[in-house]
Amino acid sequence: MVQLTPNSSYGLTLRLRLPNQTGMLALVMRAIADVGGNLEDVKLLERTRQSVLREITVDAASSEHAETIVTAVRGVEAVELLQAEDRTFRLHEGGKIEVTSRIAVRNQADLAMAYTPGVGRVCKAIAAQPERVYDLTVKQNMVAIVTDGSAVLGLGNLGPAGALPVMEGKALLFKEFAGIDAFPICLATQNTDEIVATVKRIAPVFGGINLEDISAPRCFEIEARLKQESDIPIFHDDQHGTAIVVLAALTNALKLVGKPFSEIRIVINGAGAAGVAIALLLQKAGVQTILMCDSKGIISRDRTDLNAKKQAFAVAESGQLADAMQNADVFLGVSAPGVVSVDMVKSMAAAPIVLAMANPIPEIQPELVTGLVAVMATGRSDYPNQINNVLAFPGVFRGALDCRAKAMTTGMFLGAAHAIAALVSPDELTAEHIIPSVFDPRVATTVAAAVQQAAREEGVARV
Amino acid sequence: MVQLTPNSSYGLTLRLRLPNQTGMLALVMRAIADVGGNLEDVKLLERTRQSVLREITVDAASSEHAETIVTAVRGVEAVELLQAEDRTFRLHEGGKIEVTSRIAVRNQADLAMAYTPGVGRVCKAIAAQPERVYDLTVKQNMVAIVTDGSAVLGLGNLGPAGALPVMEGKALLFKEFAGIDAFPICLATQNTDEIVATVKRIAPVFGGINLEDISAPRCFEIEARLKQESDIPIFHDDQHGTAIVVLAALTNALKLVGKPFSEIRIVINGAGAAGVAIALLLQKAGVQTILMCDSKGIISRDRTDLNAKKQAFAVAESGQLADAMQNADVFLGVSAPGVVSVDMVKSMAAAPIVLAMANPIPEIQPELVTGLVAVMATGRSDYPNQINNVLAFPGVFRGALDCRAKAMTTGMFLGAAHAIAALVSPDELTAEHIIPSVFDPRVATTVAAAVQQAAREEGVARV
Repeated sequence: MVQLTPNSSYGLTLRLRLPNQTGMLALVMRAIADVGGNLEDVKLLERTRQSVLREITVDAASSEHAETIVTAVRGVEAVELLQAEDRTFRLHEGGKIEVTSRIAVRNQADLAMAYTPGVGRVCKAIAAQPERVYDLTVKQNMVAIVTDGSAVLGLGNLGPAGALPVMEGKALLFKEFAGIDAFPICLATQNTDEIVATVKRIAPVFGGINLEDISAPRCFEIEARLKQESDIPIFHDDQHGTAIVVLAALTNALKLVGKPFSEIRIVINGAGAAGVAIALLLQKAGVQTILMCDSKGIISRDRTDLNAKKQAFAVAESGQLADAMQNADVFLGVSAPGVVSVDMVKSMAAAPIVLAMANPIPEIQPELVTGLVAVMATGRSDYPNQINNVLAFPGVFRGALDCRAKAMTTGMFLGAAHAIAALVSPDELTAEHIIPSVFDPRVATTVAAAVQQAAREEGVARV
Repeated sequence: MVQLTPNSSYGLTLRLRLPNQTGMLALVMRAIADVGGNLEDVKLLERTRQSVLREITVDAASSEHAETIVTAVRGVEAVELLQAEDRTFRLHEGGKIEVTSRIAVRNQADLAMAYTPGVGRVCKAIAAQPERVYDLTVKQNMVAIVTDGSAVLGLGNLGPAGALPVMEGKALLFKEFAGIDAFPICLATQNTDEIVATVKRIAPVFGGINLEDISAPRCFEIEARLKQESDIPIFHDDQHGTAIVVLAALTNALKLVGKPFSEIRIVINGAGAAGVAIALLLQKAGVQTILMCDSKGIISRDRTDLNAKKQAFAVAESGQLADAMQNADVFLGVSAPGVVSVDMVKSMAAAPIVLAMANPIPEIQPELVTGLVAVMATGRSDYPNQINNVLAFPGVFRGALDCRAKAMTTGMFLGAAHAIAALVSPDELTAEHIIPSVFDPRVATTVAAAVQQAAREEGVARV
């Protein structure tokens, strides 16, 4: 059993009344520390002659761990636990986004311009010259985040309502990292035809569509059909966002080990949306040898259980993941916790690169392969080299919206990946720093510029 | 030809460079006044020894009038017109609403709560207990403003992109007047089945649906089917918003003339969405005698061109609008400019009430019937008694969302109408003040309380 680091996602806010005596807070701290809780903030709310009211935020490693911490605090004599609140649930109350006015409506004159009768002339202008919708409405900066809730994070088919908190979170990231307005569309259908038809019908308001958490292989058909039938960019983040960031990370990792894309042997474990998109983008970047594996082992020509997307990657070799990894230069995991063993890593070629991106628990824990790998990366923020889609999608859409792109192209994805990789300068590049931080403020603008340039070169930019 | 009052909806912002000499600004003012422009603000931007830079906002009565004003200003010697900008178009650039974060994302801890991994637990909680979507997401306060662009204002079928500025304006009003988050859904279809299917599929994110600017008679079927097949309130503002405000205005107007609902003869001119909904709500309020007219005259039993909605109001009488108006106590117009003559008003019963709501030009101009009518109201803000839907829909949805209503009911509409009427106290009630101002801050909260109470009484409130 892997022990996770306490983090804010399981964090608690505790409200305590302590006697106003020296050392009382220390007792509480000690009790929390004894059960492995990580203290974040301590706030003094009120002090009287008799008692002190404090609010304490504590990180925990799991819901059970949070319970243990509460029990421990309750056990401190003379301390009264008034309230124990789950920070994450508290933060979600009422939702995470809102729709606000960009203009004031203070009086009749404002109303007459923003609404009737003034708005009528704006409507007529758009009806007469359809391209003006980009100037005179929110379309220029608006992205729909579309899901059917069929593959929510790693949690499976939670349905549209269960997916909504993720989509709201994504909208928040679009705004925070790229100033983009994004709105969650959670569909009460998982039928491919219905999803395609619905997205096309709601498209007039949006400058782009971000597909999210739709299960494979339906996601491939939905994306392909929408690309064909829409005049705005369609982007499935689970596929292309992941592929862009993986390509960026791998570009820098390969510099460190001095191997070219054309000569490496790559194992991709996980043949869903992310795995397939990573493989396709790596091929465009010049990779020749890819062994893709799913839960049944190598995607091999002798298998009869493959969908069309998997068949495209079928190889002559066959066997299990362990067989694929022998002499591999790179392991890319978009699969499940703990499926890679130390022996598998030992069987890889010299200076192996391991990107173990299963969330929240990677395919192999970094601690287990220290000294055995040249470069290690995960999807986690508490280890070096976090492979996080937030490095890609805000800038990708910023670039696409800014040039009013008609479509997303592979050239735009390659441009984004190279832009991300180039943000780590040669003198910064180390095994523990192959990719910029998600909070590096240069990321979105740099990616946007590269995406916009690629869109122009490929002829999909409207302006 | 009716001359309209200059207003901000055709307003201009003029940027001028004038010689720094006494009386120059007065020359400009005079030129504007001579062609009938209404000056709003004058701002000093810069003053040098030689010249003064000023920005002037001027109201105009039409686009042609605005052109005339520009020409007049250009004609003032020694004054240089640097820029003439259409205020309404300027205000619409980039759209009128945005999607913003309700929480901060400053660091890794915020990200871990608002997005992965923290959000996963929230998703699972909703999947396990579906009603929690109201607590933990935007659904509790989110309304979809749905249109197909088939009947945009009085402008006709402008399509979904042409309708978007109106829907953004509506979203802005929802926020400003009732703190509601509303989002425009402009559909690229005008097929009834497709609209119904699409709205049902996007419903999970929303606590209510406001249908808008969908042409009759399709709007009736779309609303009816959505009501039957949805578990959130469905409200067609063109119907029910208008009906609620008309009932409120008429309630107070009848108090002034001392006539009861049950005894009046009412002519409704216009048998589209608004006309039908007004008639239905008035019947619920006790009105017995309604003559509905469309462009072909009285909706009469001997006509063979009537849709089902119109048939329900068919009467034994037949004839034209002028026939219907003889001895009528009330004229309600939701039709076209200037269709009512002074003679028709003169043929009405004693103390006639005229609500001429065609926009922007009413069925008859108030100036023409001064002294002939007991009460006159229009849809315009520059005459007394403005019948404006913004008196109803923000409060109606506020009430419905606050009690998590499963549906909208006629009882909720009657409650809203009575609440609006009651805001004009007996000592305030005059022929020129039968309805509160749209900027009266009590309106939305009072309507919301009445709607919530009605929802509880009718058993459609979830909480």
